[in-house]
Amino acid sequence: MPDRLIHRVAIVGGTHGNEFTGVYLIKKWQMCPALLQRDTFATIPILANPAAFAVTRRYVDTDLNRCFRPEVLQQAEVAGYEAVRSRELYQTLKTDAATRVDFVLDLHSTTANMGLTLILVNHHPFNLQLAAYLSRVNPAVRVYSAYQPGQSLAFLNTLCELGFAIEVGAIAQGTLQASLFQQTEALIHMILDYLDAYQQGQTVPETRLTFYQHRHTVDYPKTQAGELLGMIHPQLQGQDYQPLHPGNPMFLTWTGETRYYEGPSAVYPIFINEAAYYEKGIAFCVTDRQTIELESK
Amino acid sequence: MPDRLIHRVAIVGGTHGNEFTGVYLIKKWQMCPALLQRDTFATIPILANPAAFAVTRRYVDTDLNRCFRPEVLQQAEVAGYEAVRSRELYQTLKTDAATRVDFVLDLHSTTANMGLTLILVNHHPFNLQLAAYLSRVNPAVRVYSAYQPGQSLAFLNTLCELGFAIEVGAIAQGTLQASLFQQTEALIHMILDYLDAYQQGQTVPETRLTFYQHRHTVDYPKTQAGELLGMIHPQLQGQDYQPLHPGNPMFLTWTGETRYYEGPSAVYPIFINEAAYYEKGIAFCVTDRQTIELESK
Repeated sequence: MPDRLIHRVAIVGGTHGNEFTGVYLIKKWQMCPALLQRDTFATIPILANPAAFAVTRRYVDTDLNRCFRPEVLQQAEVAGYEAVRSRELYQTLKTDAATRVDFVLDLHSTTANMGLTLILVNHHPFNLQLAAYLSRVNPAVRVYSAYQPGQSLAFLNTLCELGFAIEVGAIAQGTLQASLFQQTEALIHMILDYLDAYQQGQTVPETRLTFYQHRHTVDYPKTQAGELLGMIHPQLQGQDYQPLHPGNPMFLTWTGETRYYEGPSAVYPIFINEAAYYEKGIAFCVTDRQTIELESK
Repeated sequence: MPDRLIHRVAIVGGTHGNEFTGVYLIKKWQMCPALLQRDTFATIPILANPAAFAVTRRYVDTDLNRCFRPEVLQQAEVAGYEAVRSRELYQTLKTDAATRVDFVLDLHSTTANMGLTLILVNHHPFNLQLAAYLSRVNPAVRVYSAYQPGQSLAFLNTLCELGFAIEVGAIAQGTLQASLFQQTEALIHMILDYLDAYQQGQTVPETRLTFYQHRHTVDYPKTQAGELLGMIHPQLQGQDYQPLHPGNPMFLTWTGETRYYEGPSAVYPIFINEAAYYEKGIAFCVTDRQTIELESK
């Protein structure tokens, strides 16, 4: 098959060391590699940040999933565990002819109620087709686009044009949730089956895709000293992907004050109350809901 | 009132630095101290482990809530942040006449579905009365006894005969959940109001108490190398305080095997899938459900 699109697939887990779903799916597949076998490509499971996993933290020195920028990957001096590790993954997945891959899935979990989310880092037609297929066959699958033309991203998935991240939740850091573990595993098998079917000419083009386009982030209410002054309002908690209308509550402060959404029209918040985003100053991400027609190829 | 039982109350939060409910209740009360004022005693809010909170971890060197043993508190050489901090808290709360307290509430959160749980470290009649009152007035309140005659505990609450820990969940580490934050706050006000009413002779003795008595812990399935081989079974996940009957599933392994409970009779698992207990080798705690008659004093 000389014209195959995909020869090698990487499934990456534990890019954040305290997101156990990906870590233990990788360990399961390392124990039972036959589960990943398909006729038209090879699949390699990779534990991305073993040092962070060993201490059950997101990262040791810096967030590995913000290291994939040319200035980090190509700098002469490398400082810090994740900077070194990002360069290793860059070489393995992208530049070394013996190991490079054509498709990358990067497995994450979140404390936000994100269900099964695909995170696009580009709008490559193949990724849009696959996302459309997965969300049509399993309506629980949602598609979030972090891609913004002209802006460079630093996620692991930017190493490869094809593929995306999978974000599942709500799951507390440092824990496994069997139900979401099983749903994630089933989703990955559906993806591998699609890739295999595609390469055998057995897929039918999808015609439309609904996705949630990243716009900006919203921080928590803070004191002048930069400390939290409030939390996600009970009415917003867990309402990822539900419309937030003008006048709806967003935050509740220690002094009992409710802060309302004052934008001009409804938006769709996601990553609401993600633990790792407290330090990044993100209470939630604001998205627009969009439906596009897909070109049949 | 020379015969008051309680002159000073300590409410302690952030004994584990990534359990934000307690941390931010303390910060709220430091900002609004009038909320804690009652007629017959003073209440002091204390942030127990500020260094662990600063890095959003349970602890820096060792689990502070396992440091309150005589051999740690009275050793000549003190090594590690939490060992030093446990000695400071021991002096502040127990030995220094100017600051010592008569009643301690220690605020915790858990990734397990524990709702609002009181954790008793002894069976002092006053604690049993208060626990009975709280669980009668608010049926969502459950009482767990970690006390076992002849065994010494190392929890912060052992500094004081009166009082107990409050454990709320499910809450992911490093996050706030507004609804449980509000329920915890309301529970604490109910406790302070009870103490105040008691000292004014306005409480009525309770006659019975249902509680869950700690028996032992159960570890996850592990490989020979000590790695996780499975996770809490979907049917057990979130079922804290529900009976686990012989033949009910407990674990699901990577190889797809279900492990069943094989004990002789029903038990009541709690702390199911608590993140911090993975490293302690605890998948859940096994308890018996008991109802006792209380002596009227």
